[in-house]
Formats: sequence, C-alpha cells, structure tokens
Amino acid sequence: MYTEKVMDHFENPRNSGEIENASGVGEVGNAKCGDIMRMYLEVEDGIIKDVKFKTFGCGAAVATSSMATELIKGKTLEEAEKITNKKVVEELGGLPSEKIHCSVLAEEAIRAAIKDYREKE
Amino acid sequence: MYTEKVMDHFENPRNSGEIENASGVGEVGNAKCGDIMRMYLEVEDGIIKDVKFKTFGCGAAVATSSMATELIKGKTLEEAEKITNKKVVEELGGLPSEKIHCSVLAEEAIRAAIKDYREKE
Ligand code: FES
Repeated sequence: MYTEKVMDHFENPRNSGEIENASGVGEVGNAKCGDIMRMYLEVEDGIIKDVKFKTFGCGAAVATSSMATELIKGKTLEEAEKITNKKVVEELGGLPSEKIHCSVLAEEAIRAAIKDYREKE
Repeated sequence: MYTEKVMDHFENPRNSGEIENASGVGEVGNAKCGDIMRMYLEVEDGIIKDVKFKTFGCGAAVATSSMATELIKGKTLEEAEKITNKKVVEELGGLPSEKIHCSVLAEEAIRAAIKDYREKE
C-alpha cells in the first residue's frame, strides 16, 4: 500500500519539531479529516536556514511533511513557494489516492509560514 | 482542541510496536480516511500478557490505541472484549467530534485480534 520511501519518512521523520522564535509560522487545517499541520521557518537573507513541522495528522501527512521540509531547506523563499504537493508525492514514489488530501497540508503550511514571515518583515 | 491526556498519549504512545509470534493479530482499516491499525496480543491462560499496536493513522488513532492497550493489558479476553471506543475516549477526556471515527480503529482491532487468537486455538 505504501512505498518504502513513505514508510521511511513516516518512521524516521526529518525535521520534526518546533523552532522557538521562528521567522515565520504557518498553521493549516484539513477540512476533510480535521487534522492540523504547523510549519516553522527560520529565514536568513531570503534563504530557509531551518524548517520544522508538527502535526497531529496521519502517516501520509508525516511522510509528506518530512519530504517537503527536506526539499525546501537551504532554498530561497521563491523556490520554496514553488513546491507543490504533487512534487512531494512524486518524490515519495506515490501515495494511495485516498491519502492525497493529507499531502496538501505540507504545501499549504509552507505557504502560510512564508506569508507569515513576509507580513512580519 | 485536544486534552492534555490525548497529547500525552500521542507524544508518548504506550505499547507501540509489534509482537513477534503473537497469539493473535488483528488488522482493520478505516473506510473514512484509508488508515490502518494493527493490534498484536500475547495471551496466556486467557489473560492478555502483552499487547502492542502499529498504525499509520493520525494523532487521535495513536492516542486512543495507546490508551486502549493500557486498559486491556493484564485483563482477561472477556474483559478486553467489553472495551468500547466510547470508554477509551472518556478516559482520554474527550476528542473533537470529527475525530471520533479514528477511535473506532482501536476497538475493532482489539476484537479482530481476539477473534484471530480464538480461531488459532
Ligand atoms: S487523514 Fe488527516 S492528515 Fe491524513
């Protein structure tokens, strides 16, 4: 049902946790399942120096967030904004169709965190 | 949104893992969100000596399974069969209504594992 990459990111999530005094924080909810995702960014000179996520969501939400944080770490804000849930799912080797809605959380949370950072600037 | 007890069982799940050569294994799926729950029992003289669970489900599924395993450990099979998801949710101090369906997984997985054990006997 799940690829090895999905199981790996689920069982050993990268960048899970919180950042104190983060430059930007994005929190989004999933209307379909009621789960929540929070994304923390540390931005320096337009570059994402660090990123952490916290979620109450399912394994698919954990795996996609873990992968998404790896994809945006070290990137510019403009590059990070271009990351789509489709790209993240591709990198994981796919997800069952009924779990695609979970992967949207990471994309939305990253955008919300970037928006929060820009508003604070 | 979530009680302290829910967050505690989510962040420090009790009895998470697998049991090799378990006396009974129950696997159930959640039609609503596509998640899976697996419950492993070690039974001796009609008593649940050990129990472990594994899930890809969300925080509510993790917290309710964790609590459910604590409630049935050391109990007889007959006692364990009487555990309902309502009881588990009560012990956790409640869950948001849209997450109640996640708590059903633990109850169903326990019953499936007991059934599996009895069939093997
Ligand atoms: S079911 Fe809620 S995030 Fe996957």
